[in-house]
Parts: sequence; structure tokens; C-alpha cells
Amino acid sequence: MPVNAFYAQSGGVTSVINASAAGVIETARRHADRIGTVYAGRNGILGALAEDLIDTGLESAEAIAALRTTPAGAFGSCRYKLKSLEKNRREYERLIEVFKAHGIGYFFYNGGGDSADTCFKVSQLSQSMGYALQAIHVPKTIDNDLPLTDCCPGFGSVAKYVAVSTLEASLDVRSMAATSTKVFVLEVMGRHAGWIAAAGGLAADHGIPVVILFPEIPFDQPAFLARVDALVKHHGYCTVVVSEGAHHPDGSFLAEQGTKDAFGHAQLGGAAPVVAQMVKEALGYKFHWAVADYLQRSARHIASATDARQAYELGQHAVELALEGKNSVMPTIERTSDSPYAYRIGSAPLDQVANAEKFMPRDYISADGYGISDKGRAYLLPLIQGEDYPSYRDGLPVYVTLQNHPVAKKLPPFEITK
Amino acid sequence: MPVNAFYAQSGGVTSVINASAAGVIETARRHADRIGTVYAGRNGILGALAEDLIDTGLESAEAIAALRTTPAGAFGSCRYKLKSLEKNRREYERLIEVFKAHGIGYFFYNGGGDSADTCFKVSQLSQSMGYALQAIHVPKTIDNDLPLTDCCPGFGSVAKYVAVSTLEASLDVRSMAATSTKVFVLEVMGRHAGWIAAAGGLAADHGIPVVILFPEIPFDQPAFLARVDALVKHHGYCTVVVSEGAHHPDGSFLAEQGTKDAFGHAQLGGAAPVVAQMVKEALGYKFHWAVADYLQRSARHIASATDARQAYELGQHAVELALEGKNSVMPTIERTSDSPYAYRIGSAPLDQVANAEKFMPRDYISADGYGISDKGRAYLLPLIQGEDYPSYRDGLPVYVTLQNHPVAKKLPPFEITK
Repeated sequence: MPVNAFYAQSGGVTSVINASAAGVIETARRHADRIGTVYAGRNGILGALAEDLIDTGLESAEAIAALRTTPAGAFGSCRYKLKSLEKNRREYERLIEVFKAHGIGYFFYNGGGDSADTCFKVSQLSQSMGYALQAIHVPKTIDNDLPLTDCCPGFGSVAKYVAVSTLEASLDVRSMAATSTKVFVLEVMGRHAGWIAAAGGLAADHGIPVVILFPEIPFDQPAFLARVDALVKHHGYCTVVVSEGAHHPDGSFLAEQGTKDAFGHAQLGGAAPVVAQMVKEALGYKFHWAVADYLQRSARHIASATDARQAYELGQHAVELALEGKNSVMPTIERTSDSPYAYRIGSAPLDQVANAEKFMPRDYISADGYGISDKGRAYLLPLIQGEDYPSYRDGLPVYVTLQNHPVAKKLPPFEITK
Repeated sequence: MPVNAFYAQSGGVTSVINASAAGVIETARRHADRIGTVYAGRNGILGALAEDLIDTGLESAEAIAALRTTPAGAFGSCRYKLKSLEKNRREYERLIEVFKAHGIGYFFYNGGGDSADTCFKVSQLSQSMGYALQAIHVPKTIDNDLPLTDCCPGFGSVAKYVAVSTLEASLDVRSMAATSTKVFVLEVMGRHAGWIAAAGGLAADHGIPVVILFPEIPFDQPAFLARVDALVKHHGYCTVVVSEGAHHPDGSFLAEQGTKDAFGHAQLGGAAPVVAQMVKEALGYKFHWAVADYLQRSARHIASATDARQAYELGQHAVELALEGKNSVMPTIERTSDSPYAYRIGSAPLDQVANAEKFMPRDYISADGYGISDKGRAYLLPLIQGEDYPSYRDGLPVYVTLQNHPVAKKLPPFEITK
């Protein structure tokens, strides 16, 4: 008799996390003899704790297929990290109770490092409680910081967005630099690592003078200003791609540098305006700045086809791993060649994934610290390959909104301690 | 014997101004019996004043065709407004001298209101000086504020970018709102008119709760906050699209509201962070904000096919008007039907275009002032129709950089009074 599955999205969403959902659900549907209904958690793991499940079986094949080209989290995601087993064992037990009540034997958790950790602990606890559960983590994070996988779904599309946007805005500045803006500053995400900022370096291959401010390289104001000045003097303009995580040698973020409103309230945020103002004051160049924020991680309209495909495949392989009897694992991307790009799907045990973080190797950054190296370029380029456009109606992309029918509750309410 | 032509790009560039350039150059090439070389001004009209001309005849047919899908200004643009004829007659005379020296009898000026004015004056002066010149203005401006044309090339693509980005980022916020960001603020261009901000309203047709802050509607903080609160309480989240021109009843911009850095220097700019902070302080909702800046007007990767086509057609018709013997005119878009969308190319005399400004009708904005009306929607929708993707290589769009060969100078230098 088929066993049901539970799928949840976790943490910051991406433009391709729904492609992983499609991979999970479509693959499960192809194995109806072994997998019954795929329940999704409404707003991620909170849906499991609150027994607020969505019956994905009521969605049409067309709607599930449309997830492949729909950004963000179709079932809702959440920022909610389960406490340690010691501190809040009740939460883990509650998950098992909900799974038990709904005949769930497969747990597919789609997220980053924290959710890999949760997935691992749920797997451990179910074993110790003697409950048969296979917990599979499906990787997702624009931060690209999960270990044991060459890349993380979501990252390639952000990288493509940043590379394309850097190129386009730079052409704009180049056209205007004779009498107007000479320095354009684009702020991108990446609090701890410069993977996303690095993608701006791909525009440099198209003749654009780009300066990247990485979180990995402590900010050196005089050196930075000298570099900008030299590029403007040589090219007439330059573009700065600054990571939100760029920081001073003392660890304080550039974005924290002093922005106060009229009431003296602390900073409104934004490394880009700080850097732009710095350039203006020191060098006098006219500037413009942009903060891409959510636009970069939701831009399904310019998603990387490679990324979208891998997101789907990892969802698909998560189910296949489960059907092979695996537990406490995560499907991974194993790169076998940079050029031509080739990879295969592997898997990694969750105890090795949980709470480990992958940093960008220093040698992906150029020696001077303001660009990417050939090695960095060789890593990044394959990940932005290919376009995978959504269809359009009336000028806008056709993104699906699921019906998200609730499943009748069987258990008493549970108080979630936020 | 064929007469040469001069083409220049003026003011802020767009993602489709080069399509107009392609329209001018390709059409001129088809009439080689009457039009000799098309010279382009390097960095716009400055190139004419400095006699810094580019020989577009040395560019291949492929390169010129590639302009159709290349954003920004291929020959360079400039922000330089000629003074009045009375104040600096020498500049106008210089233009005529340069035209004369290079056998130029056609002047195609591709820009907004200021350049229409310049084009008109050059036409007048050439007549008074007895120099045979046909001056044709090719409309271009993301601000959509030229009169006598239904829309301006450049606007439709920005509108599409803003509508798509608003939709995508809103789906992101919707997914996360249960535990994270509830209000997303996107700042868009439009210092004087809300045409661009209005495009965010098209996302509302896809179920997104959007609040638009227009320059046309003086900011009412309590009413705005009440609206945001009501939407968040009902939908769980909302998106605010704020025009950079949004202002208080006293005329001061929202962006000016108090942002000072640690040194007490004036604002770094940005209405979005100001609005976001206001929401946070009054309502306590977690926020994110983005400032699209140049990304929105250079985003050729998501250009409106309607806009790109019209940009080309207006360049083409500018040349055809010249060949018909017209002078001091601008080709225009005359809309004949909203749905199905239909238009024809007309023309308007420059004395009626110059220095007039088209404002957004109040009835394009909803009665409450925070959205677009059906009338506004009927106007906007056709302009974002269709996708016209550039080709890609190695994951990035293939944008052409012309050779821009200089033409040998024949005149003594001229001092430009900036």
C-alpha cells in the first residue's frame, strides 16, 4: 500500500524552488504504486507543526508542470529554525505525530543549511522513536553555500540576473559618461559569501570595467577609490558591484556606515548608496546606484536554464533516492567538466551536510581582490547557461497560483513557540 | 547627388533607442541614391559641436541590425541642452557649419522634449541662414512625456520591466509573509510623472495587492499607512511601488526626507528606504526594498516587443518623412484602438512638440490615488505586449559594440561652453 509524502519549502525562496517542487511531485505521481499523496506544508515546516497540510493531489498535471517556470514558493515558505532536539524535542515529536496521523513515510525538505540540519534531526528522531520515515533534503539556496554539492539550485539564476543586469546597466552608463553618470553601483545579495557578487564579474568579459566588493575581502577605502578613479580615467566610467556583506576590516558592514534619518534613527540599509556617496565625495564623479534586493532572486523571467533544469532534477532524484530506500541524504550536483559543462547527480549523507558551509575559494577572486579569476569564471559560466523563458499572456509571464486545498486536521492544535 | 545625414542620441538612454538608430540607418541605406553617409554624433550633439563625427557607413549590415536588440546609446548620448538662440547663437551656427562642412542635409535627433526644442531651433536657424537642412526629431524617452504621440519609445519596455519585476518580487513576498517580509517597496523612475510607477499596477491584475505612490498625488502619510495596513491584514503582505517623484504636499520629495549620513551630509537618495522605514516604524512590519534605477531602462533582455518595434518604425519613418521633403517634424504613434491594439505612424510639427509636456491624465489613476484605473490599464497594457529577446552567447545577451570610426575633421576646434 502506498505511503504518503510530505514536501516543504524552507527559508528565502528562489526563482526555481518551485521547479524542485515539480520534480518531487511529478516523480511521486509516476510512482503512485509506492507513493500516495504528496502533502505540502503551508508556509513550510510551520505547516507540518500546525498540521496545516496542502493536498497537492488536487492540483492538475498542468498546474504542477507550470511550477517549473513559476518563481517563489508555491506553498509558502518560512524562516523558522527548529531549536535543538534537547531544547525543543516536542517540536520534532510533533512533526512525527503529524506524519503518522497522515500516513507520511517520506519527508522531502527543500532548503538550505538550516533545513538540512532539521531534516537530519527529524530522521534521527524518527529512527529513535521507531517510526519509519525517509528524510531527504532537496538543496536550494541563492547563497550557494551548501557543502558537497557543486552548486545549489537558485544560485545560477541569481548569477545570470546579476551578470545580465550588470552588463546592461553598464552599457547605459558607458553611453552617458561623457556628460553624466560615471560610476554606477549595484548592490547584490550575499551576506556571508561573494558568490552572487562574483557573477557581476562575468560582465567584465564583455569589456565592462567592473569593480567587485566581496565579503571575503575586507574593504580598503583608499585602494578601492584608487581603483575606481583609474578605471574612470581609462574607460570614462566604471561599475561597482557591491555585496550586501561587504565590510570594513573591523567586521562592520559598509551598509552600516552612518546612514541616519532626520530623527537620528539607525541606517535604512543599503551598501550601494554608501559606496556611491563615498565615490562622489572623494572623486567627485556623478553616480547612480541600484539595490536589486528581491528582484534578483525572483527574476524567473531571466532564469538560467541550467539552474532550472538542475532544480527539477534534484527534486526528481530526491524521490528516486527515497524509492531506493535511502534516508537522511541529499541529492547533489557533481560537476565532471567545466567546458563543455557536464555533471551528474550524486548524493551526500545529511550528517555531513548539516551545518557545514561552503565558502567561495579565495582563488576564485582575482589577486587584487576586485574581480574574478579564470578559475572563478570557469566555475560560474556554466551555471548561467541557457534561457528558459516562461510563457506570457497580456505582456506578463504566466505564473501559476495553486489552489492549495487544505487537508482535514486529525490532531489537536499545537502551540508553536516562536 | 546624395546628401549626407546626421544622427544623434540625446539625454537618458533607453533599452530601445538603438532600435531607432537602426531604423534610421537601415532606411537611409535603402535610399543610397538620395542619402549618402549617415554620420552619428559621438556622445550626442556634443559630437556635432566638437565635429566629432562617427562614420556609420563603416559598420557592417549585421552590426547595424544588431542595434535592434542592443540597449543604451551605441554612439554615446549626452545631457547637454543648447542654450536659447539669443543666449548662444554661436552654438547653433556651429552646428550648421559642421553640417555644411560634411555635406549634411538631414538632421535626425533622437531624444525627448529638450532635443525636440533643439531640433526645432536648428531647423529655424538653418532656414534663416539659407542652409538647406531637414530637421526631423525621433521621439525617445522612458518618461513618456512627449506630446502629440500616444507613447514614446523606451517607455513600454520600462513599463514591462516594472510590471514583471513587481509581479515576481510580490510572489516572493507572498511566499515568505507568514514569518518574514510583509511589505516590499520598489522604487522606480519618473521624477515628474507617474507613467512608470503606473506600470506596477498591472501586477494587480495578477492578484497582487499593490499600492502605488504617484508624483501626481501628494503623499498623505496616514492614508498611505492605513492602506498598507489594511492590505497586509487582508492579504498577509503588500507591495508598494514608489515613484522617485513622489512628494509631500509641500512639494518636497519623499526621498529627501531626512536621510543624512554620519557626517551630516544630505540624503543619499532613495524614496524606497524612506517609505520602508516609515512602514516599519508605524506598523512594525518587516520590509525589504529595491531601487531599480538604471536596471529598469537598460533591461533589453525583457524589452516590450511592441516598444522595440515602434522604436524601429519611428526611426524608419523619420527618414521617410525627410525623403518626402518634410522639415521640422516628428513621427508619432497614433493609437487607433486599445483592444485589439492598433496604431499608425503619424507626424507632428516640432513647434507644437518643443517644450510641451504630456502629463498622465488623472483618470488613469484610481479614485483613491493608489492604483490605476481601467482607463489607465487600457492605455498601458498594449505597450508591454510581446517579448523580443536578444540572442545569447555563453549565458549573456549578445549586445553589439560598434567600431565608431571617427570622421576626419575639417574645421577649427570649437570651445563648448558647458
